[in-house]
Amino acid sequence: MKQRITLKKIAREFGVSISTVSKALKNSNEISGELRDKIKAFADYYNYKPNSLALQLRNQKTSVIGVIIPEIVHHFFSTVIDGIEVYANEKGYNVMVCLSNESFEKEVANISVLANGTIDGLIVSIARGTQKKDNYHHFEELIKEDFPLVLFDRVNDALKCDKVIIDDIGGGYSAAEHLLEIGSKRIALLTTQDFITVGALRKVGYRKAMQNAGLDVDEDYVFKLDDAEDLYEQIEKVFELEQAPDAILAVNEIYAAIAMKIAKEKGYKIPDDIAVLGFTSGLISEFTSPPLTSVVQHGFLMGQKSAELLINRIEHTAGKEYHKEVISTNLKIRESTKR
Amino acid sequence: MKQRITLKKIAREFGVSISTVSKALKNSNEISGELRDKIKAFADYYNYKPNSLALQLRNQKTSVIGVIIPEIVHHFFSTVIDGIEVYANEKGYNVMVCLSNESFEKEVANISVLANGTIDGLIVSIARGTQKKDNYHHFEELIKEDFPLVLFDRVNDALKCDKVIIDDIGGGYSAAEHLLEIGSKRIALLTTQDFITVGALRKVGYRKAMQNAGLDVDEDYVFKLDDAEDLYEQIEKVFELEQAPDAILAVNEIYAAIAMKIAKEKGYKIPDDIAVLGFTSGLISEFTSPPLTSVVQHGFLMGQKSAELLINRIEHTAGKEYHKEVISTNLKIRESTKR
Repeated sequence: MKQRITLKKIAREFGVSISTVSKALKNSNEISGELRDKIKAFADYYNYKPNSLALQLRNQKTSVIGVIIPEIVHHFFSTVIDGIEVYANEKGYNVMVCLSNESFEKEVANISVLANGTIDGLIVSIARGTQKKDNYHHFEELIKEDFPLVLFDRVNDALKCDKVIIDDIGGGYSAAEHLLEIGSKRIALLTTQDFITVGALRKVGYRKAMQNAGLDVDEDYVFKLDDAEDLYEQIEKVFELEQAPDAILAVNEIYAAIAMKIAKEKGYKIPDDIAVLGFTSGLISEFTSPPLTSVVQHGFLMGQKSAELLINRIEHTAGKEYHKEVISTNLKIRESTKR
Repeated sequence: MKQRITLKKIAREFGVSISTVSKALKNSNEISGELRDKIKAFADYYNYKPNSLALQLRNQKTSVIGVIIPEIVHHFFSTVIDGIEVYANEKGYNVMVCLSNESFEKEVANISVLANGTIDGLIVSIARGTQKKDNYHHFEELIKEDFPLVLFDRVNDALKCDKVIIDDIGGGYSAAEHLLEIGSKRIALLTTQDFITVGALRKVGYRKAMQNAGLDVDEDYVFKLDDAEDLYEQIEKVFELEQAPDAILAVNEIYAAIAMKIAKEKGYKIPDDIAVLGFTSGLISEFTSPPLTSVVQHGFLMGQKSAELLINRIEHTAGKEYHKEVISTNLKIRESTKR
């Protein structure tokens, strides 16, 4: 069987740029006649088909790394980008960031813009829309082209590429364990909808810790929030339970900060009446009152590690098999759980 | 006198891409002999000199807008990017973001990467390092090439391009006026070093409001903070003044949140003993306790406006003269100044 041929492979074969190949195949008279004919014959022989994402991967090195994140308002993603920047700059690479705004379509569009000869490799945290749609063909195409790709935080295990995740189960476990240790009996969980893997995994950890402590998980205490709706309204429901929780475990710092704010408005004392714990440990956790106990996600380290894996892939210093780095979390205990 | 010739102009003259011109000038045999000779003769005649930033501006439209911001940890810049995204996407453009990390060198590197045929135009908030160095040649080169450029927030008036700023003087004025109205007499100002224009302008507004109220500005109450050093240590000095201030006006929300935290630790009641007011009104201002009165900077609107000016420039629907849009601020009064 003939190998699958791409613009990149043709360009490599002739030692010319991808844009030259592309022009030759379009019969452009900018390309000298002899070269044009050779390229066309070669492409015909190998039955070249333009690829659907219209990737024009160049064989020239750009020394630029592309990054696609779902949003920038979360402090966590800012710290990951900082980590990517620091490592990439040290190694002589520049970084370009695009936002998917949690949309599948924007993620696909970002990839075709970035991978259009602009970058040497790509680091992505998958959009909510893509996880919901469960459609990963845009990543699969990059992988087919051997285009260097690293996924972080929100990943999909079926994709054959390097990945960097935090130990979400472990983080959820140690968070719940800490709340149990300070005497909490009814821990409400503020999490995401199930298709967001990080929320789902943190819930697994929470459940495990509860079970280890011999407690049943009451599904009434599990709140799957929808970021597209009013978070205040959704979180207020926590305080309408027949038996109020004595602790809240939130899978990010915004959920936690809102829960704390509502609890205080309703006259609860934190941490005495209700302890609150979040994930991320960003600026919000530092400035809430009381300051918020948080699962530290080491975004900076995650960014550095992602950049390292990607650059090893770009520079062909990585092995054949793909890595899945798991970054451990730890708990930063602040006043919101000190009782 | 002959006009100054660029790769872009040569490409336009021959109706080919800039990369073709560049290859022809380098004698590449990828380009057909006849075209190569014509391009070389034309370039010789016009005395073509490669330009120092090595910009290879293409004449093909990419429908991508580049953005360079100093950092992403400040919520303000995140909201500007959101505004740029929304407007740009509506008009069919994608957005790529690079960080200068406040460094002159990185800003220059970002420009040469982005303006290397990847983008149709550029939106920038100038790095602190560039303002300190007072060196704007990289922007001047873009302007000389007629490359669409919009500066926002941190701008330089000498550069001939479109600009979007907030009314920093007005914002500083109304912030100080509000603190005076609630009965403050000794208002400490937490600002940036003077070369950061936004901090300097907000100080002008503060000074004006004080003078209008018949009060002298005591320079001991003006703290010019250095972001590279420990902010907590620098802000603690505010509480070592012989006569403690009864209000603090901070030019961003991080300074304000830290001031509030220290004040509370030292036993001050907010707002009774000391009122605190910041700029930005991001997530931090919402979650501090008490919530922080803030000058709203309308980052989203600023982003939309910047994208609009840039796209008008790209699509040649803007007039000859450059616009300077000034976005008014307003005050979001929260508990930190309600007394």
